[in-house]
Amino acid sequence: MNVNNLSINDVENYFLNLQKNICLNLENIDQVGRFRDDPWSKENSNGITKVLSKGKIFEQAGVNVSRIIGHKMPQAATVRHPELVGSAFEAMGVSVVIHPANPYVPISHMNVRFFLARPKSGELNWWFGGGFDLSPCYGFVDDAIHWHSVAQKACQKFSPGLYERFKASCDDYFRVKHREEQRGIGGIFFDDFNEQDFNYAFEVTRSIGDHFLPAYLPIVERRKNLSFGKKEREFQLFRRGRYVEFNLVHDRGTRFGLESGGRAKSILVSLPPQASWHYEWPTTNEHDPQEYLKQNFLQPKDWLNKL
Amino acid sequence: MNVNNLSINDVENYFLNLQKNICLNLENIDQVGRFRDDPWSKENSNGITKVLSKGKIFEQAGVNVSRIIGHKMPQAATVRHPELVGSAFEAMGVSVVIHPANPYVPISHMNVRFFLARPKSGELNWWFGGGFDLSPCYGFVDDAIHWHSVAQKACQKFSPGLYERFKASCDDYFRVKHREEQRGIGGIFFDDFNEQDFNYAFEVTRSIGDHFLPAYLPIVERRKNLSFGKKEREFQLFRRGRYVEFNLVHDRGTRFGLESGGRAKSILVSLPPQASWHYEWPTTNEHDPQEYLKQNFLQPKDWLNKL
Repeated sequence: MNVNNLSINDVENYFLNLQKNICLNLENIDQVGRFRDDPWSKENSNGITKVLSKGKIFEQAGVNVSRIIGHKMPQAATVRHPELVGSAFEAMGVSVVIHPANPYVPISHMNVRFFLARPKSGELNWWFGGGFDLSPCYGFVDDAIHWHSVAQKACQKFSPGLYERFKASCDDYFRVKHREEQRGIGGIFFDDFNEQDFNYAFEVTRSIGDHFLPAYLPIVERRKNLSFGKKEREFQLFRRGRYVEFNLVHDRGTRFGLESGGRAKSILVSLPPQASWHYEWPTTNEHDPQEYLKQNFLQPKDWLNKL
Repeated sequence: MNVNNLSINDVENYFLNLQKNICLNLENIDQVGRFRDDPWSKENSNGITKVLSKGKIFEQAGVNVSRIIGHKMPQAATVRHPELVGSAFEAMGVSVVIHPANPYVPISHMNVRFFLARPKSGELNWWFGGGFDLSPCYGFVDDAIHWHSVAQKACQKFSPGLYERFKASCDDYFRVKHREEQRGIGGIFFDDFNEQDFNYAFEVTRSIGDHFLPAYLPIVERRKNLSFGKKEREFQLFRRGRYVEFNLVHDRGTRFGLESGGRAKSILVSLPPQASWHYEWPTTNEHDPQEYLKQNFLQPKDWLNKL
């Protein structure tokens, strides 16, 4: 294990560069929208929130980097190491949520993070976590296969079965339990990850961070010019409502952030610029996008092998 | 104490009549919108959800009655009696959330509920809870005074200081902690209430339920014809976003309902038909409605005495 100041700086530099790179690429594809930088600090924590609003392609994109120093590790921060709850800790990460304007372009989310826990007695603990997942309003099999093959590619030079393991965790995690549906078509999700050594775990994390744009941008390119009308917009706003429900009711990162006094406006940049709720989505006898999406895309599926 | 089948039936009848009466009065003032009835049952529970959508005055109003029978009382259901967590229980209540179309008409919420807990050993426990509170987008001092004077009237024939106590609980409870603002101008909130005897506690609860319409309808009448434009609508959608945040992040009833496998679509009829989020509300040098609302209305205030 090699967790010294130098490697922590390497992690931070990687996160800052990833943020910059993602913003540049999103601006490039959007052509109109530009990210506004909002550097902040609050008590022992700081970060840079970058928000693009009202772009041509992206109605809103938030790309956050933050570094949190805390005296008491909250429960939500570690599942596998309950003995570390209450320890002094340091957490840093990049987190991205993109709400496109066109309902045919899926919502996407990416996060990579690093935790250090310093228990009063015992040795220093560290782990990585993160992943990326996709939430289409209108599902396309081609997009799902592309998304998951890039996810698989991000994992393939590491331990065998890594993609399958991270893919299963993603399906477990991104479920809107109270609606009995998945948030989207999944992707990869990992947490409490410190396998082998620091360099290996950091390399896995970098590979996942670096594969987000190759997974997402081709899908944006394919769908950004599809024409849509009022009906599709209405369905998009309805699906965004479900996204809000997941983030505020179930998402551990959001809840931990809000409950531990984090910077609300940076955390909640994940929420869509507009959303709607209907008591019931008005199912008609004709083709119903909600039923179609739920049956064909909002179920855990092995997109790469079982088609 | 007198909790037999007869008095439980009295409570249920009161709740059903209150639901009917509220719906009739809202339809009456709306003129266009009509409530649609959706009776449901799920495992040991059942209810009637009534929803008015796209009315002239009310963009959406949900009036729920439900009766839940459970084997294990959840933590969220009782604050004062932790020893009852895990007991068999029965809960029934009426719950109302109204999202008006006109931004000058405030969002309102009312709930009255009754709990029975049957611990394996020890005597039967019961209590009432509920209250009503108001969330304006544009505050009016007259409305706040009217709302709180009816709230006071609802309490005044009972123990001295009841309004003050319930008003303070309301200010405590309806706070969007992570935004450091109140949800609205408050009102009254009570929980775990079983003072004196069953008849007294039931009478207090009835008085609160019965005073909801006299508190709300005159405010609707006063504000429903104020003209508004795109700017006011935008601010209303932004404020509704905060309402969503409170309900999904902080509201005990909502969280308990969703986590205990309640009927999601009935519970979430409290969410607005449309809402929006901005990274920052665009404060201008001119009059800013968010700053004005926050400074003058979203702070606990003694509306009846200290003006």
